[in-house]
Order: sequence, then C-alpha cells, then structure tokens
Amino acid sequence: MTDVESVKHMKWWGWGVEGVAFHHADKPNFAPFVLKAVGLDLSKQAGSPPEFGDLKVPRTKALAPVRKALAAVVGEEQVIVDDEARVVHTYGKSIRDLMRIRAGILPRVPDAVVYPADEDEIAAVVALAAKKGWVLIPFGGGSNIAGSLEPQPDEPRVIISLDMGRLRLVLDIDEESGLARIQAGAQGPDLEAQLNDRGWTLGHFPDSFTHSTLGGWVATRSSGMQSDKYGDIADIARGLRMVRPEGVVVLRPLPSTSTGPSVREMIIGSEGRLGVITEVTVQVHRKPAQREVQAYFFPTFSAGIKAMQAINESDAKPSITRVSDARESGFSLATRKASKGISSVVTKGLMTVLEKRGWNLEELALSFIGFEGAPSHVAYQKRIVAKIVRQHGGLGVGTGPGALYDQKKFDTPYIRDFLLDRGAAADVSETAAPWSKLQGLYDNVIAAAEGAYASMGRKGWIMCHLSHSYHAGACLYFTFAFVTGDDPFAEYQLVKSAIQQAFIDNDGTLSHHHAVGVEHSPWMEQDISTEGVALMRGLFESADPYRILNPGKIID
Amino acid sequence: MTDVESVKHMKWWGWGVEGVAFHHADKPNFAPFVLKAVGLDLSKQAGSPPEFGDLKVPRTKALAPVRKALAAVVGEEQVIVDDEARVVHTYGKSIRDLMRIRAGILPRVPDAVVYPADEDEIAAVVALAAKKGWVLIPFGGGSNIAGSLEPQPDEPRVIISLDMGRLRLVLDIDEESGLARIQAGAQGPDLEAQLNDRGWTLGHFPDSFTHSTLGGWVATRSSGMQSDKYGDIADIARGLRMVRPEGVVVLRPLPSTSTGPSVREMIIGSEGRLGVITEVTVQVHRKPAQREVQAYFFPTFSAGIKAMQAINESDAKPSITRVSDARESGFSLATRKASKGISSVVTKGLMTVLEKRGWNLEELALSFIGFEGAPSHVAYQKRIVAKIVRQHGGLGVGTGPGALYDQKKFDTPYIRDFLLDRGAAADVSETAAPWSKLQGLYDNVIAAAEGAYASMGRKGWIMCHLSHSYHAGACLYFTFAFVTGDDPFAEYQLVKSAIQQAFIDNDGTLSHHHAVGVEHSPWMEQDISTEGVALMRGLFESADPYRILNPGKIID
Repeated sequence: MTDVESVKHMKWWGWGVEGVAFHHADKPNFAPFVLKAVGLDLSKQAGSPPEFGDLKVPRTKALAPVRKALAAVVGEEQVIVDDEARVVHTYGKSIRDLMRIRAGILPRVPDAVVYPADEDEIAAVVALAAKKGWVLIPFGGGSNIAGSLEPQPDEPRVIISLDMGRLRLVLDIDEESGLARIQAGAQGPDLEAQLNDRGWTLGHFPDSFTHSTLGGWVATRSSGMQSDKYGDIADIARGLRMVRPEGVVVLRPLPSTSTGPSVREMIIGSEGRLGVITEVTVQVHRKPAQREVQAYFFPTFSAGIKAMQAINESDAKPSITRVSDARESGFSLATRKASKGISSVVTKGLMTVLEKRGWNLEELALSFIGFEGAPSHVAYQKRIVAKIVRQHGGLGVGTGPGALYDQKKFDTPYIRDFLLDRGAAADVSETAAPWSKLQGLYDNVIAAAEGAYASMGRKGWIMCHLSHSYHAGACLYFTFAFVTGDDPFAEYQLVKSAIQQAFIDNDGTLSHHHAVGVEHSPWMEQDISTEGVALMRGLFESADPYRILNPGKIID
Repeated sequence: MTDVESVKHMKWWGWGVEGVAFHHADKPNFAPFVLKAVGLDLSKQAGSPPEFGDLKVPRTKALAPVRKALAAVVGEEQVIVDDEARVVHTYGKSIRDLMRIRAGILPRVPDAVVYPADEDEIAAVVALAAKKGWVLIPFGGGSNIAGSLEPQPDEPRVIISLDMGRLRLVLDIDEESGLARIQAGAQGPDLEAQLNDRGWTLGHFPDSFTHSTLGGWVATRSSGMQSDKYGDIADIARGLRMVRPEGVVVLRPLPSTSTGPSVREMIIGSEGRLGVITEVTVQVHRKPAQREVQAYFFPTFSAGIKAMQAINESDAKPSITRVSDARESGFSLATRKASKGISSVVTKGLMTVLEKRGWNLEELALSFIGFEGAPSHVAYQKRIVAKIVRQHGGLGVGTGPGALYDQKKFDTPYIRDFLLDRGAAADVSETAAPWSKLQGLYDNVIAAAEGAYASMGRKGWIMCHLSHSYHAGACLYFTFAFVTGDDPFAEYQLVKSAIQQAFIDNDGTLSHHHAVGVEHSPWMEQDISTEGVALMRGLFESADPYRILNPGKIID
C-alpha cells in the first residue's frame, strides 16, 4: 500500500465507508414512523446511488508542467489527477453535496490532488501555488456540510486539493501540562487511539468524528458531544502552526494571553482562507475513572430546556446536557432496535405510570446527561442532577437509552443516503442563542419550516434537540426531512433558507459548530453586522490579496 | 456638578484618589523588610510628588475651529482643553508613566478631551475625526500599565482623547440568560453596585478594579482574581458594539458560534486600534450563597504550584487558586497590620510546629484558595482541596489571612507612589505558560532580574505568585523593585527587558492580562511569530488605513 493509498476517504457518492449503510430490518417502528412523518412508503422499491461511469467529470487543467512542478515537491506518486480522486475532493457531505453528486452536477472539480508528507512539503506547495497563481483548497476528512470545500464554479485557474491525510501523528505529549502536539490531518478515531494508548483522551466527539480531522475541526470551529466538559475546539486548541505563502504562523501553546486581537481565534474558523493548518497543540485529559450517560424523561421540551439551564448553572458540571423535543424523542424511540434500550414491556409500563401522573405522552422529551470523574464525584453529580430533574417534573430512566445513544451516535449520517435512495432529503441546521430566546426561536423555526413545506404542498418533518449548554445560552440542533419533488434543489433551498432566516430573526447565530462555507455565507452580514463583515473582509484581503487560498468561503 | 465633572479620574501624578496613600505606621515589619530587600531606609526624609505648576505642558493644537467642530457634536462643556485634563489623559499608570509625570516628560499630550454622552455622539466624533484626519485615543479609567493610552511622541495631527466616563449605565439585564448589557465607560465599583442592586455580580475583579472600566477590560484582554471560576474577560464578553468610521460593528450576545474567524476575539484586546467599544453584553451571575477565601502554607513554591495544578484538575473547581513564592510570602507577612490576620502569637506557635515538621521557613509559600456556592458545595470543595493540600505537604491555616487579602487587594498600587517619593521604582510583569514550563521559567526570570540588578551594582527585589490556573498552565505574576540611580529610565528598561525576554525564552507569553500597548510591542514577533504579526498588521491596516485609531499600539 502506498502512502497515498493509506489515506482513508469516504464513499465518493455518500457518507462513510463502503459496505456500511443504514437499514431498518431490526427497527420495526421505523417504517411506520417515516410514513407518518413525511409520507414516504419504505416498502416500495428503492433507487440506488449512481455509477461512477455515468458522471461527466470535467477534464483536469493540471497539465504536464503543473503536475511536474507539483511532483518535484511531493513526489510523483503523491500527485493524483484521476477522476475519482478529483471527485472525492470536490464536495463535502452536505445533503446538497450528496444530491449534486447523484445528479452528476460537477461544474468544477479540483484539477489535482496532492498528498504532502509534512509541513515542509506543504510550505513548498503553498509557495509554488502563490508563485504560479494556483488556487489551494486544504482537505481533511471531507465531512464538511457547509460547502467549505467546493471550488468556485467559474474558477479559471488551476485548483489544487491539498489532502492532509498523510499528516496523522500524535507527535508529542507534554504529560505534565496535558498538552498534545498533533498533525492536522489526523482523523478522530486515529488520533484518539494514539492518545488512548498513552492513557489520554481529547474529549472531542463531533457527530462527524469517525471521518473528520483535527485540522478540519479547527478550521470550522467544531464542537463535540462532550464539549460541555472539554470545551469547544476553540477552547481545546492552544497552539497552532499554519503555513502561509511567506512563512509559517507559529503560535506556541499558551493557557491564555493578552497579546492583542487573538490571531489564534482568527485561524480557528478560517476554513483555509488564511493558510494551511499543519499542526495543533491541544488540551488532553486523563481518561476518567468513571463515565456514564443517564437518560431522563421530561413532560415537555420546555421543561427539559429549563432543566438543562439549571443543571448547567449547578455545581454538577456534567459532560453532556442534551434534551430532545417531542418529535425527536418519538423518532429516537422509533429507531430503537426491537431488543435494545428500554424494552417495550418496560416502556409500556413506564408510559402508563406517566399517563397516570398526568403527562401528555405526545409531549414527552427524552434527555441525556453525561457524568465523568472519580466514582464519588459521579455520585455527587448525579445527586445534584436528580434533584434538578425532579424540580422540573422529570424522571430518571437509567443508563439503558444512554448506552444506546453512545453506540449509535456516529451512525446517523448514513440515514441521509438511505433516504436519498428513496426520494427524500434530510439535513441538519444548528444555532446557538441566549436562554431567554430559545423557546421563541424554537417555535418560530418550526413554524418557518412548516410554512415552507406548506408552500410546497408537501408533508415535511422537523425535529430538534438542545445539544450544548453554556452559561449564557445553548445550541439548538434541528433535523429536517421531506420527500423531494420536481426541483429538489429549489425545494431544499426554500426549507433551509426559511430555517436559517428564522435563526437570525430570533437572536440565534447562523451556525453553532458547522461553520459558514458557501452554504451560510448569505447570512453573515445579518449575523455579525455589515461592519463586522468589513473587518473580516479586510483580514482576508490583506492575508490573501491574490485570492488563492480557498476563495469565496465564509464571505464572498 | 456638570456631566463632565461627575466623571472620576485618578490623581494626575499617581495612583488612585486624592488623599489616599500607602503608609506603614501600623505595619511594624515593613520598614525592616524594605531595608533588607532593596537597601532603602524608610526613616529618611521622603520626597513628594511634583506641583502641577512645575510641568511644561505643550500647547494644544485643538484651535478654535477644531473645538467648535467637536462642540457641535458633544456640546461646548464637553470639550476640554485645559492643561490638567490633557495631562490626566496622556498616560496610564505604569511605573514609567509615573516616573515620566514626576520628571515632567510630556513630549505630546492630547490636544482636547471630549466627553460624549452616548454611542451616537461617539459615532459623530469618530466620523468627524476620520473626515478631518484627527487621531482618536479612547480613554476609560486610565489605569493601563502597558502604554496603551499615550500619544505617539512625534504625532503632528490633532489628537483627541475620547473619555468614556459618561457612558456608565447597566442598560439591561436579561435575567433569564444571565446577560447584562453595560456601557463601556462603567467603572468596576459602579457597575458592580448596579448589578448587586439587582442580585447579580460580574465576578470580574482585576487589581485595577476600583479605577478601570468595562471597555478597558475588553480592549486589553483583562483577567480578574476570580477568573478561575468566572472566566477571563474574553469569556465573559458575549456581545459587543464598536463604533468605526463607516458604522457600528454589532455582535449580538451569543453563547458560542462558528461564524469564521472570531470578530469578537479581534475586538477583544484591540486597544482602540479597530474602533471605539461602546457597549458590552457580559455574563453575570447570581451572587453566591457562600464565599470564603482559605489560606494554606506549602513547604516550597514548587510544591504549591503542583498543588494548584492538582486543585485545578480536581472536581473542586475553586474560584481562586493563588500561591506566592517564598519572597512574596515573606512580603505578605511583613505588610500585615500588627493586629490583623494571624496574630503573631499564633504565627509563632505555628512556625514552631512547621520547623519541627522539618520545614525550612525561608521557603514557606502562602496560598489562597477561593470557594463559592451553596454551603454544601463549599464544604465539598474544601474537602477535595484539603486532601490535595495534604498530598502536597501543605497545611490549612484558616480564613484569617484570606479575609485580609480580600480587603487589601486593591490597595497595592498605592505602594508605587510611596516608593517613588523615596527614590525606588516598583513594577509588575506577568506571563502565562504551560505547567511543565513554570519552574524553569520562574528560575530563569528570577536569574534574569538578579543579573540585571548585578550589572547595575544594585540590590534589587523580585517576587512572584501564581495568580490564575488553567488546564494547560498558569499565570505567574512578578513584582520587582529597586532603588533608582542616575538614569532611572535606562535602569528600569534594563530590568523590565530582562524579565520580558526571559518570559519569551522560557515558553511564556509577554503578558497574561496587561495587554501590549507600546511597553510590550517589541516582543510581539517573538511571541506570536513574524507571520502572526503580519496577519495582525493586515487587519489593522485594512481597518484603519489612515492610522487615526490609537496608532502605534500593539504592533508598530
């Protein structure tokens, strides 16, 4: 296996690895649920992904002299111009990306994919691109869903996809400080395994974990399911190295500093527009002695949200605070395997008890709280949380559903391909807002999506969970789906835009942790103000006057 | 009293309010301590601050047309050109500032001081300055010690000091979210009183608290004595408004967001170079049910540092982690009032016990840990901390010294004027570095200062405490003093430079929370790398192409 072959990529047409797909044979409630939710009959014959041979891939502009110049830097075997590699590096994995691939929409693909071995080679590639006027798009795991990876459709210059996959080592652990220096191309499971081998964990588990990289997390301001405890990537990333045409930005790992506007925070979220992130020094932690995810039921989503805030403010400081609205709670129960989680007998008994308590089971909200630390501390946390749950009318239901959640949390993206095979589109949008705004935001986002579905005369679905809690507010994470009609792209855009606009109009941000790319950039001025965008534009234009560094992303 | 007269300023020649000064009549051990430490005999006749009449204040360049144009915006009474007001607005309160004022060194002072009433007036002043090509220097409490406020000595243009003192209201508290919208000119005690009246606290208590403003804290990336719990100002400030020549940057309060390079983190620490911060939405907290500061002794500073790390990593999560080296511990004991804190009888008994335990009392390190929350949680925290203290060979000594520390923490800056009256200079320098680097950094900073003193043939003093703990490292805060000779400025520069260079050479940052100004800017390239400075320079130049916004600060 060559170095390049050792770099793992997802399917060119969908999420995840070949041979793995969502199925519902063991989830008896799933098909009826989908029929009711979006009117899709899963018993009907499904379509299938396209054949690669059916795609019309534009010819590469990386002619022999370009390839030769690149090969002189990274070696001939590390310069790839074949169609499948170029297509794999064209998009991320947003629903629009998946739909475009299936429809063979490829207005512009990278002309060459290069696989540098180290920072020196990256520096040489960047310098070469600057000299020649080629466009550079850094590529990590390719899991982005905001359009941060795609070439501009009308780009006349040579476009190079810089695949970071060979830079995947944990280089060094400063055990005394809890700091690990890691190459930017390391994917989640790989870097976590390297850390685990030495007794450490990063504690960063975004839903994309299995197919995303450290450099990608930093470039998009990622957040993970245990970020309540471990912090978002912006907290975790203490030191950085980023290659620019004139040299390398080196930010040494520091716990905190007052050295002017934060260059660290300029690089975090920069999506390749300031340079190529090659190395990140991150906070790492000793694996906790005990870890458990407890499930709770609340009578309503509103009660659950208020409980999450109280828990976040309490002395418990859990690792996960999560609560789903009634629809998502119903969805979770529908996607359970017949034999797992709370058995249906127990569930039925429990539901009877709740009805006797006066709960409307249509409103039930499922919550997960994570606990970590010494056993005595986990016990202390659970006592505090139990009291708050009771005060908000909730009920503990044990670790069964939580264990299930833990196991399947990274499988959800596979469902999108399953649904696309059957003519339905599913996507996610997330935001963050102050606690006082969440209920209004939630109500208006649901109404906006319903309005969009109604205007199409279509039955659509939208569900939500609170995924991260902060002192000042929380992240609300929406999932939506509908059966597509004659113009899937326009229909998708209608629903997606309605949701994004409702975020902004209700004091939320356009994205809590999925970044901006091209998907969210139309809302940037509304989010951070015209003058805020002007400051950012000044930074990009001064840092990249010839627009060779992933141009067109974040702001136009 | 006019609006302008209601704005409080510190003494033009020194720290704090008129009539308040450091004295040692009730601190019997202070004079012997100072004699031993720096060879200064406090029984000798002291000098005194200069008379204002002795200063040669350069004439204002704000002639009648300038004043008239400004008056048209803010009103005639709010445009001040008298010499004392201009001198008050020339410097902050660094030791170099105090020395320059005493020596009558005033190469350039602001030509006019204006006191806008609100953001609209600020916007009009900024637009006017942009049109006319005047330089604008925003002024909060004037407590800065990094040279962030001083005009460039060779500035030929009209310089306006924009005093924020009339913008001091807590405008709104979002009680459901724990967010308060506060005008940038509000000083510490004023805003804290407004919050306390409604049951809230900001929890931000820098040493400058009594004379610094919210806008100043944000503009300099401030940190306070309880930041371990409440966060640094960069964590606390969630929403911002900043006036620029073309309009206002409006960042709505958000718990977190992934909208590209953080404009919020560009404004934090910008020291006036990007615009005028007018309003900040900050995280506020309910006042804790219980709050106490416990004191501990450790056999050595090294043991104390290791204990602080273990406490920071533990589940206790205290509000303060602080430990002083042996010298500073000795200084603290020497500045005690005869009748306060641990009485000398108790101290003597305790010291005997420690000696019997085998402690070298010359190495003793005094530590303070802060606890906050429900009484049961404070008890829980204290149990965890007590165990860690024991594991590191330390000993609890109760709340007496902690209460004393709490009372006198804001009085320390007065000592500098007291010493200047007697021919000695005292200053502070602080840094942050990973845990693994702290001991080496400490040793080398002490050696660097001693080396500087030795090269002058002078007896000098340097002491240190750890003031803030993070997962990845901590802040070390150094205080140094020496009797000045023929060329106090060169002597000071020698010592200060040796310390700063040792920070950088030992993996520390040039400042943890005092910002950059002109004092620290020579080390910026060494701290954040040449390419890091290039990114920052691009931001400043694109945001302020005519260099009217506090030019020359942070980077040249």
